[in-house]
Amino acid sequence: MNFKIKRLKLLNALAKATKAVSIRSPLPVLTGIKFDLQDDCLILTGSDSDITIQTKIEKDEDLTIYQTGGVVLNSRYILDIVRKIDSDEIKIEILDGALTRISGATSKFDLNGTDVLDYPRIDLSKTGTKVLLNALSLKDIISQTKFAASDKEHKPILTGINFKAGNRQLECTATDSYRLAKKIVSLDEDVTFNITIPQKSLDEISKIIERDEMIEMYVSDRKVLYVFDNNIIQTRLIDGTFPDTNRLIPDAFDYELDLDAHYLLNAIDRVSLLTNEQNNIIKLDMSDEKVVLSSYMQEIGSVEEILDKSFYKGTPISISFSSKYATDAIRAFNEPKIKILFTGEMKPFIIKDFEKDDVIQLVLPVRTF
Amino acid sequence: MNFKIKRLKLLNALAKATKAVSIRSPLPVLTGIKFDLQDDCLILTGSDSDITIQTKIEKDEDLTIYQTGGVVLNSRYILDIVRKIDSDEIKIEILDGALTRISGATSKFDLNGTDVLDYPRIDLSKTGTKVLLNALSLKDIISQTKFAASDKEHKPILTGINFKAGNRQLECTATDSYRLAKKIVSLDEDVTFNITIPQKSLDEISKIIERDEMIEMYVSDRKVLYVFDNNIIQTRLIDGTFPDTNRLIPDAFDYELDLDAHYLLNAIDRVSLLTNEQNNIIKLDMSDEKVVLSSYMQEIGSVEEILDKSFYKGTPISISFSSKYATDAIRAFNEPKIKILFTGEMKPFIIKDFEKDDVIQLVLPVRTF
Repeated sequence: MNFKIKRLKLLNALAKATKAVSIRSPLPVLTGIKFDLQDDCLILTGSDSDITIQTKIEKDEDLTIYQTGGVVLNSRYILDIVRKIDSDEIKIEILDGALTRISGATSKFDLNGTDVLDYPRIDLSKTGTKVLLNALSLKDIISQTKFAASDKEHKPILTGINFKAGNRQLECTATDSYRLAKKIVSLDEDVTFNITIPQKSLDEISKIIERDEMIEMYVSDRKVLYVFDNNIIQTRLIDGTFPDTNRLIPDAFDYELDLDAHYLLNAIDRVSLLTNEQNNIIKLDMSDEKVVLSSYMQEIGSVEEILDKSFYKGTPISISFSSKYATDAIRAFNEPKIKILFTGEMKPFIIKDFEKDDVIQLVLPVRTF
Repeated sequence: MNFKIKRLKLLNALAKATKAVSIRSPLPVLTGIKFDLQDDCLILTGSDSDITIQTKIEKDEDLTIYQTGGVVLNSRYILDIVRKIDSDEIKIEILDGALTRISGATSKFDLNGTDVLDYPRIDLSKTGTKVLLNALSLKDIISQTKFAASDKEHKPILTGINFKAGNRQLECTATDSYRLAKKIVSLDEDVTFNITIPQKSLDEISKIIERDEMIEMYVSDRKVLYVFDNNIIQTRLIDGTFPDTNRLIPDAFDYELDLDAHYLLNAIDRVSLLTNEQNNIIKLDMSDEKVVLSSYMQEIGSVEEILDKSFYKGTPISISFSSKYATDAIRAFNEPKIKILFTGEMKPFIIKDFEKDDVIQLVLPVRTF
């Protein structure tokens, strides 16, 4: 393996492939990035047990190939070296076995690599149900639901985002059983599947999406393949059945609060100053006359904030909830105006865009005494 | 106590006084800021056992005093409240005992304070040897020496910066016994003292200095008082005798390397990529023909960097040292060009500005095999 490449081009590709690498992988070779230099391109692969990211750089004026070949280089060191080396163009060549030299203008790094034959074979073939999804739409799905996924491993299925396709629409749901986030997008294809993808893997994919383009997804029993740009990504699926959450979402409401999302976020932020971090509970008291957000912290003090720029419909009601859950849910909306819909003091409430119904955020209230 | 004040003015003063507060103070009242509202000003005080910071806001169009008085408010909460409250002007009044209300436009915080009588009396009288020091010069002293102070508590005297005055000059020194940083400034007064001030306290003072002005320092046996702007700061001194470090600094050198500080920092940064964090040792090989910086990391690899933009005078020599210590020392210089002076492979080397002698950085080499 021997080639010359524009530093920024390699850095960009390495940064992508490295997102799949877990530095504490039980299989040491997987802490590396596989370099596969072919006649007409350089293919970089990073992988752990959840996700594989492969990205290709085509041969052009930025990539000169002297001799094909391959090696696995430690992801942390090679990424740092390419980030900091002192020239716009760098040369990478295997000196002997897997010992690889990376040269800049005045600096010269010799890295002990690993033989490519030690890297596991990963099947990245395009099999399963094909569906096309807009890249920015996938990015939205991820950012508008991921925070509601559970970070606790004892119910693995809840650490993922559920993708359920049918009737030409895709319903994406995450829940940690205290709150729920759902986003619905329409599909061109009439396909049916019900899969749950690890939230962390989707988050990495979201970081790799750079532009408005179409992503080909290939959904099969145990994995999903995503093909876009020069990238092929594969994520494993989480075993188990995702809870049916549609019956949790009420469809009629007795109380409605309309207000500006940004204004509410600021008020919540202030009122949360006097809550403790483990139990950040705030209270909302609503009536025709006024809407008040408040909190109380034993020994420390209390705070009251009048939401005078809001509109409330319904009889007086008081509801207590986690300010963190409410904040996460409200931040998921791209539009300024939102509505919060209630059915009772101890019933889950939902937050929606004032006009659109594609995103639903649900939060469970807490009992306070 | 009842007053109205411009939010940003109070925030700025609170941010200063809070720098003295340790949230884990063994004396609960010291986790607070003392508010002392007098006829013509508001005085805020924060303190722990090492440092006391008092700052004064004079009565003017930004501060309206309705009723004098005082209270101690938890520093963390009051700072956050004043940072986030929703108006440019805020009102603070004692409701009952030490219960204090902070009101903005739509938000209202009630904080349980502590009676001012429970706050320890701190003597901030101007006693001892008076010396005038330019504020920016003190800031330089601190930033150019503090990193060399020890962060280990077993030799308390080395956790401070030593200030030694005599012959109309002030010599400031910090050392953790592996490296040393010294800065010399001239004094107008012919005063004599030899004190060691906690590095952390000086670092807080440095953050409070905002402009080019004169600081009055009052040095006594157990403490130093700093008076400038509307601030009075007091720091305790560290007991014990600071080691006499002047004999450690060689005055004749057989080898000299001249180069640009920024260029050297970048080269060290790259070569450090292949060192481990606990033991970040790099090697410098110098001769008439070339100057090479290198490092080697078992199993991982090696790196060589040719410093072709340097000038070396002397017979060939190799020296190994901590890249972190070298980086800290080189960053202390404000001017681009520096010289590194050596007396032998296992002897301390010193770094100086190419033209000036006011800053001396000394680093001990390490033995490598």
